[in-house]
Amino acid sequence: MSLVVVGSIGLDTIETPQGKVQDALGGSASYASLAASYFSPTFIVGVVGEDFPEADLELLKRHQISLDGLETKPGATFRWSGRYQDWNQAETLSTELNVFADFSPQLPKSCRCCSSLLLANIHPRLQLQVLDQTERYDWVACDTMNYWIKLCPDELTEVIRRMDIFFVNEQELRLYTGIENIFAAARSLLALGPKLVVVKRGEYGSVAVMPDDLFFAPAYPVERLVDPTGAGDCFAGGFMSYLGTQSELNKAVIRNAVRCGSVLAALNVGSFSVHGITGLDPDTIWAKVHQLRNWA
Amino acid sequence: MSLVVVGSIGLDTIETPQGKVQDALGGSASYASLAASYFSPTFIVGVVGEDFPEADLELLKRHQISLDGLETKPGATFRWSGRYQDWNQAETLSTELNVFADFSPQLPKSCRCCSSLLLANIHPRLQLQVLDQTERYDWVACDTMNYWIKLCPDELTEVIRRMDIFFVNEQELRLYTGIENIFAAARSLLALGPKLVVVKRGEYGSVAVMPDDLFFAPAYPVERLVDPTGAGDCFAGGFMSYLGTQSELNKAVIRNAVRCGSVLAALNVGSFSVHGITGLDPDTIWAKVHQLRNWA
Repeated sequence: MSLVVVGSIGLDTIETPQGKVQDALGGSASYASLAASYFSPTFIVGVVGEDFPEADLELLKRHQISLDGLETKPGATFRWSGRYQDWNQAETLSTELNVFADFSPQLPKSCRCCSSLLLANIHPRLQLQVLDQTERYDWVACDTMNYWIKLCPDELTEVIRRMDIFFVNEQELRLYTGIENIFAAARSLLALGPKLVVVKRGEYGSVAVMPDDLFFAPAYPVERLVDPTGAGDCFAGGFMSYLGTQSELNKAVIRNAVRCGSVLAALNVGSFSVHGITGLDPDTIWAKVHQLRNWA
Repeated sequence: MSLVVVGSIGLDTIETPQGKVQDALGGSASYASLAASYFSPTFIVGVVGEDFPEADLELLKRHQISLDGLETKPGATFRWSGRYQDWNQAETLSTELNVFADFSPQLPKSCRCCSSLLLANIHPRLQLQVLDQTERYDWVACDTMNYWIKLCPDELTEVIRRMDIFFVNEQELRLYTGIENIFAAARSLLALGPKLVVVKRGEYGSVAVMPDDLFFAPAYPVERLVDPTGAGDCFAGGFMSYLGTQSELNKAVIRNAVRCGSVLAALNVGSFSVHGITGLDPDTIWAKVHQLRNWA
């Protein structure tokens, strides 16, 4: 009943039409593991530098996230700086890999046979390294981004072949498959191996594509968008963490998992950095999950 | 249990990446009434010229659409010519109003107290003229377009104040209200009088906004988009026609009405002109409505 999240952990400087934050907690594993922490015991696997703020470590601990797989290396933490003029597309201003440059993820023993594994957005080569260390997982899922699809599609294909669940947004799906129709594109990914492709459609929600079924879910409505960074990571984290509490990947479970992911993604984009998904009352989340069910 | 559809009837010349048709049946009332003909007895109210093809009249008759309110005037039928490079935006190449130029819609006696009235997309002044002739309707709805929002927002506001249901797409909603968030924008329309605002989101489906509830519905998936003309009209026609068979505007009815509209819109965009929504077996439509329910 636990989830391992592998991905990046960084300090983000982000500018949106609603304001700016500097060196705020970010990275795919940070967002995904905080979102995940509400449903399953969660392990974060990643690397930070010696300058990583104590307050951010404390935040992860307060969320009962196991830091067994968190390495601290000499040097500076990974940093990303970006700006949103179009809400759907971050413009990268700078990337400093720092200690992330030669990161080689190591799964501690405690993580080798948890119930679920989420390979959050990092280099597909690192995702493969993690897969080679796993012993037994019920559900293995990954996320990715345009950058890796363009840079190393073959390694990404290797990853997808080994997944149960693949999270992808519409643009990435079209880019990777070369197929315009998202349903046809998702089916071409199912043919590679996954049992489920979850296509993220931003404010329009998502569609889960299975070999013989579909499930459409709306996004949880957001009244004021502040910072879209990490929405996809929160979606995947929430989804996988809910799934980790279940013994079967059936229709009802997939629906609830998608709703959990949608609610966490929506909560996330209403605040800068991870502020929207920290310190929440689980009842608040469940109330929104139920609303989402009633609205469909 | 009958629906009156008032709107334009024209001959369209349309070019899309999938091909071209010339002088094919079009206009908001043609699409909406053909879509509507599957659920309720339907009356079409509009004007055509002496050149209107006999075959198109026969098509409407075959669909049991009453032509009591169809005037034939000396002169040529309204013609519109457009092209799609972006699937979401028709580029108008030419508009010839012809007999439509001084159209003054007259509701025949048989139409004055049907169960539902759909004021399909035409000049808001004409929509008001029709409203002034009505005696009793259970449900009155209208659709519009960017063109009227820019040209005569005040007359449109007069129409909206008198509606039970307002159909609008996201761009139109933002343009008319000046509010970016579609939920806030829709609520500002509810404050004018309608009980229900149905926001159309193209391939992403629709959201029905009520004073104290929401309903999100996916679009029925379209494998091959051929001609998007009339999708919104078919949606409104299907919705209102299903509603005409019901005695109450409750949650379950709204959900089914939205699904009926979505299925007819999807069937429509798979073929040029009205070919996708003519001569269908009602069982085919209901099977898709049920699929849509199962996928949400």
